[in-house]
Amino acid sequence: MTYTPPTTEQLFVLDHIARIDAMAAHDKFAAATPDMVEAIVNGIGEFAAEVYAPLNRVGDVQNPKWEDGKVTMPPGFKEAYQAFVDAGWGSIDAPEAYGGQGLPFTLATVIIEALGTADMGFTLCNILTPGAIHALMAYGTEEQRQTWLPNLVSGAWNGTMNLTEPAAGSDVGALRSTAEKVTEGEHAGLYRIKGQKIFITFGEHDLTDNIVHLVLARTPGAPEGTRGISLFLVPKYRLDADGKPAHSNGVRCASIEHKLGIHGSPTAVMIYGEDEDCLGEIVGAEMGGMRAMFVMMNAARLLVGCQGVQIAERATQQAQRFAAERVQSALVGGIDRSPVTIDQHPDVRRMLWRMRAQTEAARALTYYAAAQTDFGKLGDEAAAMRAEILIPLVKAHATDIGCEVASLGIQVHGGMGFIEETGAAQHYRDARIAPIYEGTNGIQAADLVGRKLGMAGGDLVRGLIDDIAHGAADFPELQQLADACRAVTDWMVGAITGDRLAGSYPYLTMLATATCGWLMALQHQAAKAALDEGSGDRAFLEAKIASTRFYLGQIVPAATGLAPSALAGDAALAPLPRLA
Amino acid sequence: MTYTPPTTEQLFVLDHIARIDAMAAHDKFAAATPDMVEAIVNGIGEFAAEVYAPLNRVGDVQNPKWEDGKVTMPPGFKEAYQAFVDAGWGSIDAPEAYGGQGLPFTLATVIIEALGTADMGFTLCNILTPGAIHALMAYGTEEQRQTWLPNLVSGAWNGTMNLTEPAAGSDVGALRSTAEKVTEGEHAGLYRIKGQKIFITFGEHDLTDNIVHLVLARTPGAPEGTRGISLFLVPKYRLDADGKPAHSNGVRCASIEHKLGIHGSPTAVMIYGEDEDCLGEIVGAEMGGMRAMFVMMNAARLLVGCQGVQIAERATQQAQRFAAERVQSALVGGIDRSPVTIDQHPDVRRMLWRMRAQTEAARALTYYAAAQTDFGKLGDEAAAMRAEILIPLVKAHATDIGCEVASLGIQVHGGMGFIEETGAAQHYRDARIAPIYEGTNGIQAADLVGRKLGMAGGDLVRGLIDDIAHGAADFPELQQLADACRAVTDWMVGAITGDRLAGSYPYLTMLATATCGWLMALQHQAAKAALDEGSGDRAFLEAKIASTRFYLGQIVPAATGLAPSALAGDAALAPLPRLA
Repeated sequence: MTYTPPTTEQLFVLDHIARIDAMAAHDKFAAATPDMVEAIVNGIGEFAAEVYAPLNRVGDVQNPKWEDGKVTMPPGFKEAYQAFVDAGWGSIDAPEAYGGQGLPFTLATVIIEALGTADMGFTLCNILTPGAIHALMAYGTEEQRQTWLPNLVSGAWNGTMNLTEPAAGSDVGALRSTAEKVTEGEHAGLYRIKGQKIFITFGEHDLTDNIVHLVLARTPGAPEGTRGISLFLVPKYRLDADGKPAHSNGVRCASIEHKLGIHGSPTAVMIYGEDEDCLGEIVGAEMGGMRAMFVMMNAARLLVGCQGVQIAERATQQAQRFAAERVQSALVGGIDRSPVTIDQHPDVRRMLWRMRAQTEAARALTYYAAAQTDFGKLGDEAAAMRAEILIPLVKAHATDIGCEVASLGIQVHGGMGFIEETGAAQHYRDARIAPIYEGTNGIQAADLVGRKLGMAGGDLVRGLIDDIAHGAADFPELQQLADACRAVTDWMVGAITGDRLAGSYPYLTMLATATCGWLMALQHQAAKAALDEGSGDRAFLEAKIASTRFYLGQIVPAATGLAPSALAGDAALAPLPRLA
Repeated sequence: MTYTPPTTEQLFVLDHIARIDAMAAHDKFAAATPDMVEAIVNGIGEFAAEVYAPLNRVGDVQNPKWEDGKVTMPPGFKEAYQAFVDAGWGSIDAPEAYGGQGLPFTLATVIIEALGTADMGFTLCNILTPGAIHALMAYGTEEQRQTWLPNLVSGAWNGTMNLTEPAAGSDVGALRSTAEKVTEGEHAGLYRIKGQKIFITFGEHDLTDNIVHLVLARTPGAPEGTRGISLFLVPKYRLDADGKPAHSNGVRCASIEHKLGIHGSPTAVMIYGEDEDCLGEIVGAEMGGMRAMFVMMNAARLLVGCQGVQIAERATQQAQRFAAERVQSALVGGIDRSPVTIDQHPDVRRMLWRMRAQTEAARALTYYAAAQTDFGKLGDEAAAMRAEILIPLVKAHATDIGCEVASLGIQVHGGMGFIEETGAAQHYRDARIAPIYEGTNGIQAADLVGRKLGMAGGDLVRGLIDDIAHGAADFPELQQLADACRAVTDWMVGAITGDRLAGSYPYLTMLATATCGWLMALQHQAAKAALDEGSGDRAFLEAKIASTRFYLGQIVPAATGLAPSALAGDAALAPLPRLA
């Protein structure tokens, strides 16, 4: 279960897909010099492999323990998390004024990727904090930022997102938690929070001395639905005059869940303001909660997509190593009858290349999306809009890839893959959450054909397809998929809501695969050029040629086959019969 | 977690796809009258739902316990198994002379399906026994049959298959267990068995008072590889003169595995003849082991394919029930803003119809294959040959469907799907073994493009495609897939081994989907005809119209998109680079 940070690959994608050099040409990101980028990628890779990776199985087997409202993390977690904080790997994209380094979000994504490849469950603690930071940056007051950001940025405190309630999952607007403004006394201006939230990732643990909950709740008289929701910052402990956690705040963890995977991540049921006053500060305006939440969600959705990359990379490495060592059967049709390592058998090679190609595609898509948000911050409006289109693609498609690759990883191991001690099964279990949380993949597909496709009458999506088609000149399968995407897009733009939604998932898969195909084609050409001029790591570049060719030749055409499904319309989906 | 036996569906498929009526027209299967078939299907459905289904979660949570070589099943299992034996549900397809009922194997498959839908892990005990029966029927002596069959047929004793050793998984020929003939004394003629076998399903347990192990081993001086392998019957306890288990036989269970799923099924490491003599009877001729094993494997492969149906049915029912009750969000684009059950949202309906359509397709494929083996027994040589082609399709494709449907089942549940107590996660874990054991799905694909495609120069496969194309007259998507299958088949027949193997898996998926598409088209027509004449269960028939239309319109065209992958050839799969 060794794990080697894929640094050559990461740097290659940062270079050719994220265009980190173009970011560094701007003053704002001037610190992202090639040396700095390399130092970060190598440094976090090493840290993750040494400090986080050994905990992956520990967390899976020795789950966090809940007792009397407190959650104790398994042995080694507290020390590893502290090492992360001490090493300064916390949100490097935060402004320097609050302890960050003002570096691109793309690089912060690479840090999360490295940690999560080493230990996906544990790294969830690091994934939600950036969302809280982004929300405070966008909507917090200067006082709130000064109070909360430095410890969130360093990771000394973690942030959580509290949306879900038992009857309010995908339908956030149905939530019932309340927030009532305190009008007098020392807490005047704060809000009394009351309610129950479920599925709160790292809602309680012993890694940090405070936890900053971002909680959606309703103020009295607020309208039904998402319009009536406000966002509150609710600390586990309120701070004293020196800004130290000091006062218990009526926040209680009622239990943690028994889950299929990511056992290293405690998923909490949180109770606010039940026996004791629970006070929160409003973030942004009353009833401006959803807008603020979207800021958190965009970062979180991209980073959950990144979890697909993480688990896919880890599963691929494990399968590739196993297949390079496991000896079984001679090559069929060969003259030599001695058994060979199974990575020489064609169908095992097919599985391994599929795993690699899908992983690389998901990574390229993730970095590309992260980069567009960075270019957006540099004033490139088109990039910012492109990022809006990409977020649902990254969240849904990269997490689907994570599941597929983890499942193939088991298959490569044969019978050993089904034995828990091998570790392949953990990836399969861990991977399965990512298509669910931060908006199910179905919600992402609805976001794509609803909000996103509707922008500029479909022209933002068409612009993406134009870019793909332009890059497909030498790749007929990609050209064909781009054409199919265009045809479905035109149909979708004119279709009624029910028809759009009925085809939303296959459409998302087509568009995401086309985008990945384009990014893989760009890498194919870059690898070829580097090989031609004799620069770079030859073995890496040759593998990149093979994986991109596999993706374009075998994965892209299958996506074209989804067009009939995308176009089938609501009438193809009868009401479901009731079961006895 | 209720489970309703899908008896209307099973009877419909037995009728229109398995053509059970045509079997009953022959003397041999005259007992399979419509009344008898209905009694069996309804009876086993009721038994499974009442007796096996409540144990599904028990087995998952309270795993079988190994202690000092003995395995104790969780509470309730022994009683349930005894009830199965007492009710006479054991191998009904065995000859009456040995306690069977001489009914079609197809009906025995339905019995296994019903039990396995209720509890997939537990039912493994019932899946391997038929293999042992088939091997004894084909190669056992009359004395062996009389001695062993009655208790295997009733289920009083269970059978196991012992192929795998640590260095001999897919490569069965690499096995090292030995068998040396006893030449004198009271055991003359028997063989002393020595060796270690792994991954032995129900190799040890407390359900029965004896266990009949079928063990592959090598006689002294036997050639390397599969040619040198013989098959032995090795009882846990040797029998006394009255045929009662009496003498300990040097068979020891060294441990059981800690697995991802099917926790209700103990997977044993078995040691033969270590501290004590272990005696076995040869089944068939020395070095005729693989031939005999293939008989066991064909039955087992079909029944493992059936596990795909089982888990898919169970997961679909659970998801459909959840979605019919869970209220979340108003319909997008509708005027009414009240939240609805999620099975009304288009993308959830898409998932549920996909689950149903795939489940029904896998069931039709399984019954069709089982029926061809029955028609083969009735002297229809073409049916017997058709079954040979179908076995790898059933084993691989139905188990792939099981995994896909179980995964969709989690997704339909949203966050609740990831919580173990919900039960959806168990299906996802259980399902994952089926593509691995009884010959990995990759081995099935190799069998298809190797042994099976080679029969009659490819004409057996072409004959299947002709039938599909003939049935596709009204279904253009199926016609297109049949054409693609034909083109790939022609290419495969002329291709070198490496190229065939490189495309074997996508080719298998195409051919299996085309076969399923054909069987779904037949059902579509049958349902339409029944609706037109006003016979049958209207709600069922309308759902059948919807599911078959979904399959033909949305799943079939996606399989056509796999053709480039099937045709890519070995050159598209470079050697894998070694990882650091």
